[in-house]
Amino acid sequence: MSWRGRDVVSMRDFSRKDLEVLFEKAREMERYARSGLDVLRGKIMAVAFFEPSTRTRLSFETAMKRLGGNVIGFSSAEGTSVEKGETFSDTIRMLDAYADVIVVRHKLEGAAKLAAEIAQSPVINAGDGSFNHPTQAMLDLYTIWREKGKVDGLRIGVMGDLKYARTVNSLLEGLALFDVEVALISPEFLRPRQETLDYIQSRGLRYEFYSRLDEVLGELDVLYVVRIQKERFLDPLEYERVRGSYRLTAESLRGAKDGLIVLHPLPRVDELDPSVDGTRHAAYFRQAAYGVPLRMALLSLILT
Amino acid sequence: MSWRGRDVVSMRDFSRKDLEVLFEKAREMERYARSGLDVLRGKIMAVAFFEPSTRTRLSFETAMKRLGGNVIGFSSAEGTSVEKGETFSDTIRMLDAYADVIVVRHKLEGAAKLAAEIAQSPVINAGDGSFNHPTQAMLDLYTIWREKGKVDGLRIGVMGDLKYARTVNSLLEGLALFDVEVALISPEFLRPRQETLDYIQSRGLRYEFYSRLDEVLGELDVLYVVRIQKERFLDPLEYERVRGSYRLTAESLRGAKDGLIVLHPLPRVDELDPSVDGTRHAAYFRQAAYGVPLRMALLSLILT
Amino acid sequence: MSWRGRDVVSMRDFSRKDLEVLFEKAREMERYARSGLDVLRGKIMAVAFFEPSTRTRLSFETAMKRLGGNVIGFSSAEGTSVEKGETFSDTIRMLDAYADVIVVRHKLEGAAKLAAEIAQSPVINAGDGSFNHPTQAMLDLYTIWREKGKVDGLRIGVMGDLKYARTVNSLLEGLALFDVEVALISPEFLRPRQETLDYIQSRGLRYEFYSRLDEVLGELDVLYVVRIQKERFLDPLEYERVRGSYRLTAESLRGAKDGLIVLHPLPRVDELDPSVDGTRHAAYFRQAAYGVPLRMALLSLILT
Repeated sequence: MSWRGRDVVSMRDFSRKDLEVLFEKAREMERYARSGLDVLRGKIMAVAFFEPSTRTRLSFETAMKRLGGNVIGFSSAEGTSVEKGETFSDTIRMLDAYADVIVVRHKLEGAAKLAAEIAQSPVINAGDGSFNHPTQAMLDLYTIWREKGKVDGLRIGVMGDLKYARTVNSLLEGLALFDVEVALISPEFLRPRQETLDYIQSRGLRYEFYSRLDEVLGELDVLYVVRIQKERFLDPLEYERVRGSYRLTAESLRGAKDGLIVLHPLPRVDELDPSVDGTRHAAYFRQAAYGVPLRMALLSLILT
Repeated sequence: MSWRGRDVVSMRDFSRKDLEVLFEKAREMERYARSGLDVLRGKIMAVAFFEPSTRTRLSFETAMKRLGGNVIGFSSAEGTSVEKGETFSDTIRMLDAYADVIVVRHKLEGAAKLAAEIAQSPVINAGDGSFNHPTQAMLDLYTIWREKGKVDGLRIGVMGDLKYARTVNSLLEGLALFDVEVALISPEFLRPRQETLDYIQSRGLRYEFYSRLDEVLGELDVLYVVRIQKERFLDPLEYERVRGSYRLTAESLRGAKDGLIVLHPLPRVDELDPSVDGTRHAAYFRQAAYGVPLRMALLSLILT
Repeated sequence: MSWRGRDVVSMRDFSRKDLEVLFEKAREMERYARSGLDVLRGKIMAVAFFEPSTRTRLSFETAMKRLGGNVIGFSSAEGTSVEKGETFSDTIRMLDAYADVIVVRHKLEGAAKLAAEIAQSPVINAGDGSFNHPTQAMLDLYTIWREKGKVDGLRIGVMGDLKYARTVNSLLEGLALFDVEVALISPEFLRPRQETLDYIQSRGLRYEFYSRLDEVLGELDVLYVVRIQKERFLDPLEYERVRGSYRLTAESLRGAKDGLIVLHPLPRVDELDPSVDGTRHAAYFRQAAYGVPLRMALLSLILT
């Protein structure tokens, strides 16, 4: 299935082949991520960020502008017609009338899907609800592919809040397209929701649960870290007790394979200590930088 | 009188000939509203929105960018030098030094006129005070011309708050340039202010007052709906009593001519029911989409 | 030393020769400040304004866009990842991954210097802390050079809050590169901090203190006015007593040389009366307009 004119709502809509085409294109786009290309001259991307997200928004804007295109829209619902009581549907219809592609960010589950049903222009989900952030997952997978030369055959650890972190759910759905083994490292009550586990199992993804990093660190090729929010814990004392186990430091990486790469969607707070930045394992700043060529590839595949 | 370098402050400054030139240009611009043109490369439009308005601002920005131009400015007074106590005049002088055209939105009557007096660059009024929103009126008239093939000879209903709705006052001033009959449908205390009525009468526009849509619906070719704000009513009970009469639904359109088109400046709240969207009468989404070619025409006529 | 790829953190990093190259380039850029050039096509400037500043931000954006480049970023810390607890360093790293040059504005001293140390892309200080606003000082000096044909040999008065006004400190550091005499006009407790005085003295800049404008007005070729904030005074009565002496009006300019030019960084509140606008001395609106060619020169020298 071609990328042309396609909506990007959920990782589940994409095949392994789709991702391979995307990755090859992104690899090519790295050459133009600084110099720029002129393939989208005259085209307009609308950013409809009902919920703010600096990094995701700016990487999309940078990608569009590096391709010669333009950007309109809003970076938060404040001061928009939404505050005047306009429905989400009407706001999307307006943007659909102006733009060639609409990038939606919303706190509510299903917002991007609804937008895609309403709009004739393709809609890209830049994160909605607690379970979908497909372009971040594509970026995460691209980073693995780019840094390790492949995805198949790797042992991949995912650590932190695996239940409510948007990026984790989409990442697991994406990993299910490859032949990998996943180590799910989290407190028991923050394991991925059953619906996600059923899905990845049905796709044949092998995974095991761990409650501590050191139980599996030595076997990992990739470690993906996300934040655990204190608010998730009913008992603050319980949070204080376990937080250390899910906070990555240079120290806690002792015993890792030489080739282990550490990924993080960013922004980070205290779950990923700056002491890691200096280690050979830190790949998250390169991961962030890949966001531009990856989204350049996405936009050019969808719009040309 | 040529459009070149001209300010757009009030509908009263424009002739029927001016509008005909604008409409022909907008019709031509529809061809480029998606693909884009390159006639304003290197030019800059400043948006000075002291009061937020997503739809008006984004349609201006889209128009400028589709023409190859750039945009600077602010979408609300928040965090601008205005908050540091700078005068409106100094802010306009600053933008005049940077931009080739200034689009002003302000809650106060006369702001655009003052800006036009201060600035050497042309100033476009994107809505100020309660009575002026000329580019919206141009868009409304273009939509009628475009959808019905002409404006002369039509029977046009305007329903809702006709006293305080910016767009209505400018629309009536524009309609006065054509040979039409206007039905003013509103509660008595929300009829257009006397000054407006005197003006359109002096221009020979024929109008009649109605308190209910069903009194005139069957004769209308165009029905323009605007919101009635609860705040306008001294007595909440009175509001509850009449609101139904000024709320358009598919049901309330029974008995309309086949060719009736319903217009609305958008955003809408509850005065225009989604049940109307599916009827043959709904033209307001196309109206919103015409905002881009209409403003492309306006900007290219003024700047080239 | 070449301008190419250079950071602009403090005026102290620049030589007289650097400024002469900049001024010649700015003079050349005046020809393109309206029509635009295409030298930075495909390039991206990030604006990282953790503290809002309409005038500085818009003049940078206008300059970048007139040069054919693009802009991303944020105009205040609100709704950015900073609010999610991201460190300043991580935010700068993100922008460094996306943009070719980063323009930083921050209320804290040293923010731009830190950004320059972190980022590989050149960083431009658009104002940080109380003492550095180098591009404003470059603009001030360019205005003098442009209006008077030279800087050497002039008698330059600086009036207002000379201690806490960012622009004054950078301006004095810049004036120290030329052969001028400076009159420091302020209440005693708002004289420049000792560290600044020691620096300009070490560079051979001659200066004298005055407590009232009329003591020196007749000898001045340039008068640079900055605001005195009421908050600086422990005793409100003291403020009321002296404010008049530091408030410029057409009246208070009686006895000035014919050729005196009055400068102000803008925005102004009441320290510079509108009655001055009409006098032959008012140069501050032209000064503001020079901001575009000056910053076009800066960006093109650094990026090409």
